[in-house]
Amino acid sequence: MNQATVQQAADLLLKGQDILIFTHRRPDGDTTGCAGALCRALRAVGKNAYVFPNPDVTPRYAPLIVPFEPPAGFAPGMRVSVDVADTNMLPENAAAFAGSFDLVIDHHRSNPGFGKHNLVRAGAGACAEIIYDIILALGLTLDAEIAEPLYVGVSTDTGCFKFSNTTVRTHETAAACLATGLDCGELNRRLFEVKRWPRLQMEQIMVRTMEFYHDRKIALATILLADRDRVGATEDDLDSISALPRMVEGVQAGLTLTENRDGTVRVSVRTTREIDASAICRKCGGGGHLRAGGASFPAGVGVEEAKRRILAAAEEVCDESNV
Amino acid sequence: MNQATVQQAADLLLKGQDILIFTHRRPDGDTTGCAGALCRALRAVGKNAYVFPNPDVTPRYAPLIVPFEPPAGFAPGMRVSVDVADTNMLPENAAAFAGSFDLVIDHHRSNPGFGKHNLVRAGAGACAEIIYDIILALGLTLDAEIAEPLYVGVSTDTGCFKFSNTTVRTHETAAACLATGLDCGELNRRLFEVKRWPRLQMEQIMVRTMEFYHDRKIALATILLADRDRVGATEDDLDSISALPRMVEGVQAGLTLTENRDGTVRVSVRTTREIDASAICRKCGGGGHLRAGGASFPAGVGVEEAKRRILAAAEEVCDESNV
Repeated sequence: MNQATVQQAADLLLKGQDILIFTHRRPDGDTTGCAGALCRALRAVGKNAYVFPNPDVTPRYAPLIVPFEPPAGFAPGMRVSVDVADTNMLPENAAAFAGSFDLVIDHHRSNPGFGKHNLVRAGAGACAEIIYDIILALGLTLDAEIAEPLYVGVSTDTGCFKFSNTTVRTHETAAACLATGLDCGELNRRLFEVKRWPRLQMEQIMVRTMEFYHDRKIALATILLADRDRVGATEDDLDSISALPRMVEGVQAGLTLTENRDGTVRVSVRTTREIDASAICRKCGGGGHLRAGGASFPAGVGVEEAKRRILAAAEEVCDESNV
Repeated sequence: MNQATVQQAADLLLKGQDILIFTHRRPDGDTTGCAGALCRALRAVGKNAYVFPNPDVTPRYAPLIVPFEPPAGFAPGMRVSVDVADTNMLPENAAAFAGSFDLVIDHHRSNPGFGKHNLVRAGAGACAEIIYDIILALGLTLDAEIAEPLYVGVSTDTGCFKFSNTTVRTHETAAACLATGLDCGELNRRLFEVKRWPRLQMEQIMVRTMEFYHDRKIALATILLADRDRVGATEDDLDSISALPRMVEGVQAGLTLTENRDGTVRVSVRTTREIDASAICRKCGGGGHLRAGGASFPAGVGVEEAKRRILAAAEEVCDESNV
């Protein structure tokens, strides 16, 4: 991989003229925030910069990138990706450009360095931290217009500074954003507090039907297809919902079973530091990390049998861990 | 008020020897975090420092101050309060010392300056930001032991950096804490993610029984005494629960009615920027701020009539605000 420093990346951008920025498929706050901030910054230093249209962008993040769509016939002299872990993470309409990236800016450890130049900082909590460094290296001071997308990037990728991936630089970037006068309260309310009604109803059903085992150290929630359909919950509404059982005080292993339309049953496991989530999932043919894992049961097994199996696995691992 | 600078406060502390630190009644993460951090810092510069026992401290914050209780017969040469807005905010066992504070460190705008010296910075998101400045002025560098209580202070008082009161200095303090190697993820999980089971059940009941009015821009939740008793929810479990109705996407006024044991009915109003919460509450004899307000109905009115009145008030204000 041809690894670039922040200053080398900035110098490269300063030499460019018609610059096109790419985000990843199923775009989140970090990739769109990075694209919006970098595009504004490049324009501030006199570049002709645009953001390549991302067909998957949700209404929440669209305002960060849609205003920067290139005019018809725009011929980029330089292609830059932000927060894109690999070429297979490009949206479908960008797949053709996989081999032609001049600069890759990212924070995913797994990034193979698919650009001519690659600025990959695996330790960064958000890619937006790296964009902030580039903006400084471009010789710019943050203004409120650049600060907003940058703040969306660092805050959304770290759970509003809550998760372990938050770094010193995450907070320093946020401090610089607030120094421009940004009102983070209203922004964060929209990003982190507002929930769709079907999501809240789904959570309500999970709490109402939650089961406890192993001296209440294991909590099990079930998301049935019938309930999903009844409240109108989309896949998006279920995003990260498996964190709910582990939120209950005293619970050390939270299990969430989701009944899929094709008859398969997905299980997500979230644990506290005492229990290895991947060990539970491996017993059911799945895998994962220390605190989060998953497994899938084929059609025909059914919710009740899937529940029996994952519970047995969780009980075993709890016993092995003296929990 | 005798207003002191950070350096003056630090110099005063450096001149002292037997220093006793006081927290406020119903102690939160900021007052206990400040006390724990300041006590450790003062010991690090060779002082004989303790934290005065606070009888109201909850298990969540007790580890921050309980280890620093003074031995029997400790005679302080200097009394310091942290995050105490006024003498009536001292816990009962400290009321006798109201007139004898040498140094008051606080961030409440309303603080009258009840100490001989007062370091009151109204703009600070958390009092812990000021403690961080004092620690630097004492000539110390943060270590992990001091960083943990300090981090608890800045994070809890700003909703984990989510609320509008978060400042540049809040983030800078957090950055300095993380630089010591603090794992904020596990700490924040305990502070912000874990919920008592009665609290989750109460939220579930609120969602299940939520009513919508005014084109779903008004949401109304009811907390009945019978439900509270059935799930075993304490007053503490209801803390800030009135934020829930406004979390629903599209809702601009969230109303929460709580039936009290004495027959009165309390209503809490939370609004988005389009609607004045205090205007709604004033129509029912209450008051408050732009985005948060409250009112109380006397015993005999009952939940149904209270609901009718606050709804009528909310509809009127929505109409007046063209919502």
